Amino acid sequence: MATLGLIEYADATPEVRAVYDDIMATRQTDYINNFWKALAHDPVTLRRTWESIRQIMSPGALDPLTKEMIYVAVSVTNQCGYCIASHTASARKAGMTEEMFGELMAVVGMANETNRLASGWQVDIDERFRQ
Amino acid sequence: MATLGLIEYADATPEVRAVYDDIMATRQTDYINNFWKALAHDPVTLRRTWESIRQIMSPGALDPLTKEMIYVAVSVTNQCGYCIASHTASARKAGMTEEMFGELMAVVGMANETNRLASGWQVDIDERFRQ
Amino acid sequence: MATLGLIEYADATPEVRAVYDDIMATRQTDYINNFWKALAHDPVTLRRTWESIRQIMSPGALDPLTKEMIYVAVSVTNQCGYCIASHTASARKAGMTEEMFGELMAVVGMANETNRLASGWQVDIDERFRQ
Amino acid sequence: MATLGLIEYADATPEVRAVYDDIMATRQTDYINNFWKALAHDPVTLRRTWESIRQIMSPGALDPLTKEMIYVAVSVTNQCGYCIASHTASARKAGMTEEMFGELMAVVGMANETNRLASGWQVDIDERFRQ
Amino acid sequence: MATLGLIEYADATPEVRAVYDDIMATRQTDYINNFWKALAHDPVTLRRTWESIRQIMSPGALDPLTKEMIYVAVSVTNQCGYCIASHTASARKAGMTEEMFGELMAVVGMANETNRLASGWQVDIDERFRQ
Amino acid sequence: MATLGLIEYADATPEVRAVYDDIMATRQTDYINNFWKALAHDPVTLRRTWESIRQIMSPGALDPLTKEMIYVAVSVTNQCGYCIASHTASARKAGMTEEMFGELMAVVGMANETNRLASGWQVDIDERFRQ
Repeated sequence: MATLGLIEYADATPEVRAVYDDIMATRQTDYINNFWKALAHDPVTLRRTWESIRQIMSPGALDPLTKEMIYVAVSVTNQCGYCIASHTASARKAGMTEEMFGELMAVVGMANETNRLASGWQVDIDERFRQ
Repeated sequence: MATLGLIEYADATPEVRAVYDDIMATRQTDYINNFWKALAHDPVTLRRTWESIRQIMSPGALDPLTKEMIYVAVSVTNQCGYCIASHTASARKAGMTEEMFGELMAVVGMANETNRLASGWQVDIDERFRQ
Repeated sequence: MATLGLIEYADATPEVRAVYDDIMATRQTDYINNFWKALAHDPVTLRRTWESIRQIMSPGALDPLTKEMIYVAVSVTNQCGYCIASHTASARKAGMTEEMFGELMAVVGMANETNRLASGWQVDIDERFRQ
Repeated sequence: MATLGLIEYADATPEVRAVYDDIMATRQTDYINNFWKALAHDPVTLRRTWESIRQIMSPGALDPLTKEMIYVAVSVTNQCGYCIASHTASARKAGMTEEMFGELMAVVGMANETNRLASGWQVDIDERFRQ
Repeated sequence: MATLGLIEYADATPEVRAVYDDIMATRQTDYINNFWKALAHDPVTLRRTWESIRQIMSPGALDPLTKEMIYVAVSVTNQCGYCIASHTASARKAGMTEEMFGELMAVVGMANETNRLASGWQVDIDERFRQ
Repeated sequence: MATLGLIEYADATPEVRAVYDDIMATRQTDYINNFWKALAHDPVTLRRTWESIRQIMSPGALDPLTKEMIYVAVSVTNQCGYCIASHTASARKAGMTEEMFGELMAVVGMANETNRLASGWQVDIDERFRQ
């Protein structure tokens, strides 16, 4: 199921349970997904990763749905099966319709194509785009 | 400047000029960036790529700014220097503030991190995320 | 099981058996893993790849455990499922503890994150880091 | 120099200066590299990234040199120019000799090769490597 | 089977059926593979992607077999399981022998290795290779 | 110019010169490109890499031009600036016309796009494509 197995709530140390509790409270769910149960073997990384995600994914200048779609865009580009499945689910829960999903995939596909056309044709950066 | 050089408007065939004209009209600008001038050596690819981009990037279920930020997210993940420079400029032109840019980068960075944590810890996809 | 199937020892040509024998002798095992059995359809690549790996992974300025962990770091970054599974097993056999694995993953994750922050923020290389 | 420019110490807010001070104290240097000066436009990301790196890169089950070499391995695999330059410098400062660097590159190159051979030949994971 | 499921011919709209019909006529087959059945949820992307592929993969200055092998090379480098499986099948149908497949994989593996050696050793582009 | 600098023929050890001589004889040129001059700091890797490339890139079931174009396809997908520049030059020397280059780039771009569409839409591999 994972390199070192999954740690269920019942078997978790108080340190790990505290993170699980915060995940469930923040996400208003009673479900902890496998990613966290796998990371729980390394409580320091579990805590740091969760706190970073909670901070980054909370509403700010960008709304949560936009952030989830960006997460999907990166995961698809990297071809991470787990992340595509879990963040597509999160994005749909946050309001992504089928039409939005279709457009998201179209942009991701096109960007991956033109990234290679730009590099392959060895195009220099325009003066006006330079920092 | 590019593998086969850049083709300026004055030196372009009518076929290429027609694409340049459509780019300038659609984007309401008199500037053609290097990407198109390089691709112009292959008029078939120039036309197909431009028409795909025009179709994909026009407003739909997702607004143009969101699409540009997704484009940046993919380009950064792939580390395409040209595309990062040009699409960051486009996103700013479309309304991306410095605060939005900061949050975009934070999500892109975090997604790239957790993509590897999920794969490295060999986490199985949760039953509820499976299609 | 693999594009052209797996070639077992009993069915192998003398040329392939010689490589299998060397793998088993070098690794002090009687097990040949699927990677080699798949490559065996192309004996030239089988031999060259094995000889390169034997040369590269033997003790030198870096010890075998460090080399295996670097192998895992690359495989995780590329998200190669087969390589993550097999080299994580090799690294553990070479002495990687669960704590070391956790730290390895943390570094790999962080590096993947900051690689994108550096590119996305278009940071120029400091004069002192240039060659 | 960077998307939003670089923020020098003299121009930094107290919040940013506090991070700069901690970087200089931790690394026993008076030099802040461009990466941090670029990120300083987003003080929240600056602080979170620095604190994560300080935690992850400090000595633990793996020594700092091993961690820096893993950082280089990931950066080379992702082809991040900035990160290759800065972390190669850090690894050398931490004690990486030219011979160690050569072996590091050899392992990184080989892993990138066999990652594709394993995927390209569509090799199934051996039962014994499965979790 | 796919994020939004697969759409069979019998359940498809006339718009989608028209694309399916063209795929079957062009490829002289009565089989539509899963990729198209998944994309069919987004008819605009289905049509644009199919028309682009039909245009790009038809015989030109490069023959169809060479194009299929290039497709495999990219898919293996990106480690896209679906694309490796489907385009390896297409390449074999177009005439790729086992020996050609072996050489293709050898080149792909080596290129992935030297791509990282060139970047990792921070090699400057030779004057004569610059555009 | 490179992490440890470039080693010119005049300054090379007999071991390195032997490789340089073989490169020049095999390629019928008096030019050694920077890649080899950088690697020369690690003579073992220099020799192994050169011998692997000489073996892999020589005519076989695939002709040298096809191999060079596959090399370019991988390098563009990985966005390795050095390798794109040097192998595009090699491919042109081996006979790649501008038209062939345009088609090569079109296939590479499209493959990078559909790789992500297949992964993003989470398409299962068709039974008939499975090994």
